[in-house]
Amino acid sequence: MAAPRDRVAAFGGMVWQVGADDPRRMVHGLKVALALALCSLFYYVHPLYDFTGGNAMWAVLTVVVVFEYTVGACLYKGLNRAAATLAGGALALGVHWVASQSGKELQPYVLTGSMFIMAAAATFSRFIPTMKAKFDYGVTVFILTYCLVSVSGYRADEVVFMAQQRLTTIAIGAFICFAVCTLVFPVWAGQELHVLVARNMDKLAAAAEGCVEDYFSDPAAVDAAAGEKPARRALSAKSQGYKQVLNAKASEDSLANLAKWEPGHGKFGFRHPYGQYQKVGAAMRCCAYCIDALAACVGSEAQTPAHIKKHLAGTCLALGRHLATVLREASGCVTSMTRSDRLGLAAADMNATAQELRDKLRCLATVLEEGEDGSPEAEQEHDAVTELRTSPLMEALPLFSAASMLLEVCARAELVIGAVETLATTARFKKADHDEKAALDTEAPVPAASAGNPVDAH
Amino acid sequence: MAAPRDRVAAFGGMVWQVGADDPRRMVHGLKVALALALCSLFYYVHPLYDFTGGNAMWAVLTVVVVFEYTVGACLYKGLNRAAATLAGGALALGVHWVASQSGKELQPYVLTGSMFIMAAAATFSRFIPTMKAKFDYGVTVFILTYCLVSVSGYRADEVVFMAQQRLTTIAIGAFICFAVCTLVFPVWAGQELHVLVARNMDKLAAAAEGCVEDYFSDPAAVDAAAGEKPARRALSAKSQGYKQVLNAKASEDSLANLAKWEPGHGKFGFRHPYGQYQKVGAAMRCCAYCIDALAACVGSEAQTPAHIKKHLAGTCLALGRHLATVLREASGCVTSMTRSDRLGLAAADMNATAQELRDKLRCLATVLEEGEDGSPEAEQEHDAVTELRTSPLMEALPLFSAASMLLEVCARAELVIGAVETLATTARFKKADHDEKAALDTEAPVPAASAGNPVDAH
Repeated sequence: MAAPRDRVAAFGGMVWQVGADDPRRMVHGLKVALALALCSLFYYVHPLYDFTGGNAMWAVLTVVVVFEYTVGACLYKGLNRAAATLAGGALALGVHWVASQSGKELQPYVLTGSMFIMAAAATFSRFIPTMKAKFDYGVTVFILTYCLVSVSGYRADEVVFMAQQRLTTIAIGAFICFAVCTLVFPVWAGQELHVLVARNMDKLAAAAEGCVEDYFSDPAAVDAAAGEKPARRALSAKSQGYKQVLNAKASEDSLANLAKWEPGHGKFGFRHPYGQYQKVGAAMRCCAYCIDALAACVGSEAQTPAHIKKHLAGTCLALGRHLATVLREASGCVTSMTRSDRLGLAAADMNATAQELRDKLRCLATVLEEGEDGSPEAEQEHDAVTELRTSPLMEALPLFSAASMLLEVCARAELVIGAVETLATTARFKKADHDEKAALDTEAPVPAASAGNPVDAH
Repeated sequence: MAAPRDRVAAFGGMVWQVGADDPRRMVHGLKVALALALCSLFYYVHPLYDFTGGNAMWAVLTVVVVFEYTVGACLYKGLNRAAATLAGGALALGVHWVASQSGKELQPYVLTGSMFIMAAAATFSRFIPTMKAKFDYGVTVFILTYCLVSVSGYRADEVVFMAQQRLTTIAIGAFICFAVCTLVFPVWAGQELHVLVARNMDKLAAAAEGCVEDYFSDPAAVDAAAGEKPARRALSAKSQGYKQVLNAKASEDSLANLAKWEPGHGKFGFRHPYGQYQKVGAAMRCCAYCIDALAACVGSEAQTPAHIKKHLAGTCLALGRHLATVLREASGCVTSMTRSDRLGLAAADMNATAQELRDKLRCLATVLEEGEDGSPEAEQEHDAVTELRTSPLMEALPLFSAASMLLEVCARAELVIGAVETLATTARFKKADHDEKAALDTEAPVPAASAGNPVDAH
């Protein structure tokens, strides 16, 4: 008896979690129910019942089929349905008239033949990418309406009367639908996309920083506790966030397509460049692929000994922090829809540190290769040299690989910055307040702990 | 006038391409039209018209809504629709009866209240992942049916009579739908998934091999022609195939979900482990991330000079070929649904070459570090040593990075092999013919050019 009870409890917990993760999902259920309850008034309130002539089922049907989670999806379906119903109905009536002119004998053949051609062409058109993205639902409704009207066998004047009555009811249903969806805790696809991209950028920042930290963290304690030879190290939870970025393409594409149907709302104008968010998303995924390769360096069995790692640890950790700062600045720009000089400054810091890492790499390589040279850097590392001479270069190779992977991650982060800057230009982000203040008040020292940028304050 | 004409021509060309890429898309359009034409017979043929009582519009509606490209999608929608209609209708009739017992005054409140709760709960359930994957369409139809029946205001016996007539017509529509979808050039979601995974594995093989070839190809000619300093090199078309693997997750997930609705067909049993294809796909994507990082090494501006590259060129190119062979063997196993010993042998070859590359790396590192040592490998490379001593180790670092990335790609390819082997076990792939022949005829030498494996014949 315990097993089924446990399973029910587990399912219940999972359902609760789905609601707790995003309470708007529960609100959505209530919104659909509210819209249906409003439609049902057309059955129970006498004047309303008389107005629709008992056709209120079309209002209910419209609400169930058209009501979606985001405003964009709701409008996409509603507008597609309306346009396709009108187009399909009008075309079918035209063909109906042509068929009626061709005599009783031929009429069925004309009607069935035209339906055959229309249905085949419309179904095929759903495979065309632009049609698929924008009018997939409309094509289905078009075929449906065309077939029902053209084959129904009604006389044209009957159809026109019926259509008039039904269209009124459908319009009422659609109006209720849009009103509830837009006015009661609306969920905008555009805003969802906006938040998703910014949040993923934060995850990418945390993962990049986390991977570098994991790489240079001391696994000795863990290994000693396990009492075995060093196994593949697990990544910290923070470092794993990039995996969500890898799989975000489908959500981004769908949200961007739906957002284009939305009217202007809040900070999002009617022609907000949602397509550019997809490009930012693509640049982030490109960056995430490299972080995956960096994570492989962390997990690899072949590790450079700690006494060699420590020569690059400081610079690498600093670069990881700068990289995370750049991505967090970019995410902050997207979130607040502002342009900030700090993004450029953070990127410059990152590039300077990347150059420093390249120099350190060269220096370490020279030390390993030739033992000593006259450069000041080599002098500084003099104590380390004798130690390093005894370790084969082979042991240092995993470190070199990890460092160059980190440099590649930085190069790809710059592409993310570029995409964010294009977004800022096309969406006309405003200048950030703190930049304006700084410009007005250049004499005063900039406070050391400026908000949102705890690591690198300029 | 030329511009719009050009645009129409471009659109026409694009539409033609959509059909030419996969002619089954045009066949699908014709299939839908055929199913609709069969439905229209119920209007035009007198005995059939009498049989359905003029309700043939429900057959047409069913065909338009349920007919999908793959058999799995068609069955998913059809079965969801049937079950949800029955469940929603039965539940609504029950509630209707309860409401009728509660008196005329209370009835509307009981009906609207129960509809409110039912609609809110059902809509929310669509956010639960398992419901979303398997019953998303069913939940919509359930709400639709429940609302239409419970609010309609018909008496229960009227509803039962109406439902009986409509269900018959819907069943006819669904039958026509399934028959046309399954019997006329059927497209099976399971087979599509199968082919997609195998084709992506071939693309991965070509990309891995291509990237290594691009890395060691001589860019001097190109640079000389451009007359500029070496810019980022472009990948060959062959090497870019991995990008399609990166974006295949959505297709794989959707096909795997739909395939589970399909009956057994051809070599695919009813309980074919379609979920395992998703795992193979995940392993391939993991491998593709690393190939992306390897491609970045090819495109990087920092390149090791050719005279150092050549020391690892042979082994790296051989490893690239072995890696491609392994992936192609695995793809061949999936395609032909057989288990082949050659996969294990190819993997062993790849691992041996990977070990050889590790040794060469160590040897090259030692040469660079210490100039000379007593090992035979170093003796062989003696001519190169004096040359190498003059080049800083720094120049060799990009080569080391690329080589270790290649080794990581090989490690991840082994995970793909592991996933394919699990698939072979769970799906009970048969032993390949050539293995059986070899087992029967162990004395005879294995032909040097065995089919499908031109590089490594065992």
